[in-house]
Amino acid sequence: MSDFLDSIKWNPDGLAAAIAQDAKTGEVLMMAWMNRESLALTQQEGIAVYWSRSRQKLWRKGESSGHTQKIKAIQLDCDGDALLLKVEQVGNIACHTGRRSCFYRSLEENQWRENAGVLRNPEEIYK
Amino acid sequence: MSDFLDSIKWNPDGLAAAIAQDAKTGEVLMMAWMNRESLALTQQEGIAVYWSRSRQKLWRKGESSGHTQKIKAIQLDCDGDALLLKVEQVGNIACHTGRRSCFYRSLEENQWRENAGVLRNPEEIYK
Repeated sequence: MSDFLDSIKWNPDGLAAAIAQDAKTGEVLMMAWMNRESLALTQQEGIAVYWSRSRQKLWRKGESSGHTQKIKAIQLDCDGDALLLKVEQVGNIACHTGRRSCFYRSLEENQWRENAGVLRNPEEIYK
Repeated sequence: MSDFLDSIKWNPDGLAAAIAQDAKTGEVLMMAWMNRESLALTQQEGIAVYWSRSRQKLWRKGESSGHTQKIKAIQLDCDGDALLLKVEQVGNIACHTGRRSCFYRSLEENQWRENAGVLRNPEEIYK
């Protein structure tokens, strides 16, 4: 394990927030979590590997969908507890709903309204 | 309290992650946390109001530095537990270190290296 991992202020669950941003367009695609092992693997493999809190296991983004994220840069914030991944989003879809970004709801007049359509039916993605 | 707040999946501490992104350049500026009250105030006041976990109080971003964040859009992710704020960053500085973005360290050859300089001395900002 490399000591760049020691610079991270892991939370009590051993996790740090990880924001994935499209390296070319700047669009924020998703936010997930990494533990020490997943960040080490992300750095080694050059693809985003998160820690799934719901499944309590390593999650190679795209392992089911093929929508992997190729790492272009990894940045750390001033507090040392949040990571910013600049990625190339394979398949142009980051969200499990089949949308490009997970942030597809916008607050308008006190309501959440969809701001982006489904590019591919999730049933086709996860068959 | 408006019911758009009920769509958020607040964590056990009553918080949701909030990512601030420059509305014009797309640069990711910082990540912080919001509770129900801070999101309601953010929507009402049109400036970013976070919940400071370290100080356990509402934190109107820029209250000391003048570096407020004017809200251009508020987006919610598919899981309902992360917010994306598109902001106009007053003073062009989001980080308490005097840098534009908090994500000023990049991983290069297994080391964190600074990728951005200090625009204004923090001692001048917080005097």
